[in-house]
Formats: sequence, C-alpha cells, structure tokens
Amino acid sequence: MTIRFYDLVGTDQRRMSPYGWRVRMALAHKGLDSEWVPVRFTDKEIIGFSGQKLVPVLVDGDTTIHDSWAIVNHLETAYPDRPSIFGDSGGKALAEFVMHWTNTQVHPHLIKLILGDVFRIVLPEDQSYFRESREKRFGMTLEAFTDQSPERLAAFRAALEPMRLCLASRPYLAGAAPSYADYALFGSLQWARCGSPLKLLDPSDPLYGWRQRLLESFDGMPGKAVGFAA
Amino acid sequence: MTIRFYDLVGTDQRRMSPYGWRVRMALAHKGLDSEWVPVRFTDKEIIGFSGQKLVPVLVDGDTTIHDSWAIVNHLETAYPDRPSIFGDSGGKALAEFVMHWTNTQVHPHLIKLILGDVFRIVLPEDQSYFRESREKRFGMTLEAFTDQSPERLAAFRAALEPMRLCLASRPYLAGAAPSYADYALFGSLQWARCGSPLKLLDPSDPLYGWRQRLLESFDGMPGKAVGFAA
Repeated sequence: MTIRFYDLVGTDQRRMSPYGWRVRMALAHKGLDSEWVPVRFTDKEIIGFSGQKLVPVLVDGDTTIHDSWAIVNHLETAYPDRPSIFGDSGGKALAEFVMHWTNTQVHPHLIKLILGDVFRIVLPEDQSYFRESREKRFGMTLEAFTDQSPERLAAFRAALEPMRLCLASRPYLAGAAPSYADYALFGSLQWARCGSPLKLLDPSDPLYGWRQRLLESFDGMPGKAVGFAA
Repeated sequence: MTIRFYDLVGTDQRRMSPYGWRVRMALAHKGLDSEWVPVRFTDKEIIGFSGQKLVPVLVDGDTTIHDSWAIVNHLETAYPDRPSIFGDSGGKALAEFVMHWTNTQVHPHLIKLILGDVFRIVLPEDQSYFRESREKRFGMTLEAFTDQSPERLAAFRAALEPMRLCLASRPYLAGAAPSYADYALFGSLQWARCGSPLKLLDPSDPLYGWRQRLLESFDGMPGKAVGFAA
C-alpha cells in the first residue's frame, strides 16, 4: 500500500518545510516509496482528517500520524527490516537532542536571515496568510524582521559550532553513515536552500562538505529538489 | 596501581573545573578509585610532565593523558569490563555533541553569570593571576563583566532548552541511567555550584530534578562536594 505524505508546497513545487524535509530524508533512508500530497498554507482542510492543522502528516495503511518526530518513530518501528534511521539506542537519543537543538537554537537564527526570501516562494494564494501570521508573530513587517547582515550570518554560523566540532572527526554526525541526527539539521538547511539564495555556509566550513555529501545522497534526490545553489 | 588525577583546587578544597568534574563523574561511573592531586592556577609545574599546562591530567600506570575527552575515552577503552561511560556507539556520539554544545553554547552564558562569584573561591595566592588573565580575555574587570540580571539568567535557561525537552520523556539524557552525555552538562553545573550561590535552575524545571538525581548519585559524592546549595 502506498504511503501518503502530506507536506507543504511553495512555488515551482518547492518543498518548504524543514520538518517535511526531515521526514522525506527518513523515508529515503528506509527505502520507502511515498506519494506526496502537496498542502498549501491556506488549504489545511486537506489534512483535517488528522485531527490537527500542522504538516507533515503521514498516512501509512490504516495509520495516520502527524508531527515529524512521531512519524519517524513510526517508520522505525513499522519497518524494522529496513535500515535503521537511528542506529542504536544512543543514536536515537542523539537524534532527538539534535532535533531539539536545531528547532530551539538554530531556527531562530535561520528565520531571522531568510524569512524575507522565503516569502517570495510562497504561492500567491498563500501570501496574505503567510505575511499576516508571521508579522503578527514577530511584531513587525517581514522586511523589518529579516536581517542578512554579516553579524547575523556570523551568529548563525557560531550557533552551529557543536555540529562543526563533531564533524571534525567523522563524515556524519552519526559516524560513517548518516542518521536522523544528520537529517534533523540538514532538513532545516534544505528548507533554507529551497527559499533563499543566501550562502549560509562557507566552502571552507566542515559543515559545507557534510551538507554536500547529503545533497548527493539517495541518488542526489535532495540536491535535485527545486531551490537555490547551496 | 592507583590512578592519579590532577585537578584544579580552590578554597576549602573546592573542585573548580567543569572538565575536572566530568572526569570525576566518569571515574565514579567506572567505579575506579583515584588519588586527587590538587593543582593551583599558578602552580602548573606540577603537571609539566604531561607536556602541556592544562588540567585535568590523568596518570594511569605508565599512561599520562590530558584533555577531559581524551581521558574519558582512555578510561572507556582501558576498562572495558567496567560499566560503559557512553553506552553504545550512538551514545558516544551523543556525549560528544552534548560536550561541544555545553562548551560552546552554554559556558559563555554561565561564565557571564558566575565569574565574579568564582573569583571569591580562588585561592589567595592565585587571585592576581586569575583576575589578570580573565580581565585580559574579556577586556574588562571581573565586576564589569559579571551580570546576574534576570535577563541574563533567562538567556542561560533558554540555552538549555534542547536538554530540557529531551528530559521531558526520561530521567537522564542517555535514558534510564546517566552516561557521559549527562555528565558533560552536569560537570559544568557542579563547577558553578562550587563557586556561586546563584540559583541557576528553578525547582519547577525538569533540569532541576535531573541535577538533583545526579547530585545524589554515587552515594551522594557530587552533592557532598564543597559548594553552595543547588
């Protein structure tokens, strides 16, 4: 039975959710096919059956799951014969920590840098909603909120230091091969790459090579996604 | 053969190095006895044999190791029959990430809050060195640098959010029992507790209960160490 994967859509079929990207990488890691059901910001009735309003939502047979972490845990449990998304027990704890770290310590920097750019890839029919909801949340216009100054970029890069130091000794956070600990941050960088031409990483940064390896993973699927050059 | 453990000393035999505390917890975790050799800030000749000037230093038989991460990895490898400090392979990656995160993202907040207090537990003969080296590093007096305002305390607590979110679902970061992933942050909080009466954590914070459990671990060894009430 085909897995149905409800995920946010932007212009030119851009996949514009960091959480959606994490699930997409996890599905690829498990070697699972899925049918993407595009969801617009203002067309949330399409996922009303899930009992809530946030993407991503996954429908796997009789099971409906929302929240990317819950979805990934479902995939890990439901498909034990496929490659593990976490590795071992410590690997799952690592993935959870990196996910929370990305969401709470990295996203605020990232949003500050790219929100204005992301607005330009929001579908025309969603733009009013996007602008109003974000401007209400941040208490200012998208244009006033967004700041791509060298200082802001440096603060974002400094926030990534724990990841950078770990990657000094191995190709992926998880070791020789990637796991969800890698996808947690990578998914957020994919969201940025889909929406903003800003060069977030310097080519001399170990994180640049790490991202490059992930862009080329799964036959280059992440790198071929519509977006700006990394 | 007794393991010799060279670690920083302050007034009243206080153990005043976050890195020393991590090693001390790791030694306890392995159930290894060691002889503490107190090292003053201005008496680094005592560790000159290690070929460098930083504590902690561990001498285990013919092996001399410095750098807390290298020491802990030595203990893990040299004593494979004792309880693992990391758990599994993913657990080691988790511990390394949390260590780098603590050092680069948590310590700056912590130092800003407690440096002025820590000065008061530096041994009299070390105070000039401590003040001069820190004031040179931060470009201002210890008193001007230290800031215990509610905003600074809130920023410190906000930086701990990834750890807090993980602890919502289990008693220790590593799971049902602590590992070096827990000791990495705990060691830094012990350093703070030895030097500052500031209440870093609110009793309603899941991190408060987590720290309490670790204070009571190993027959209460960490909680009995000279310091302020947690």
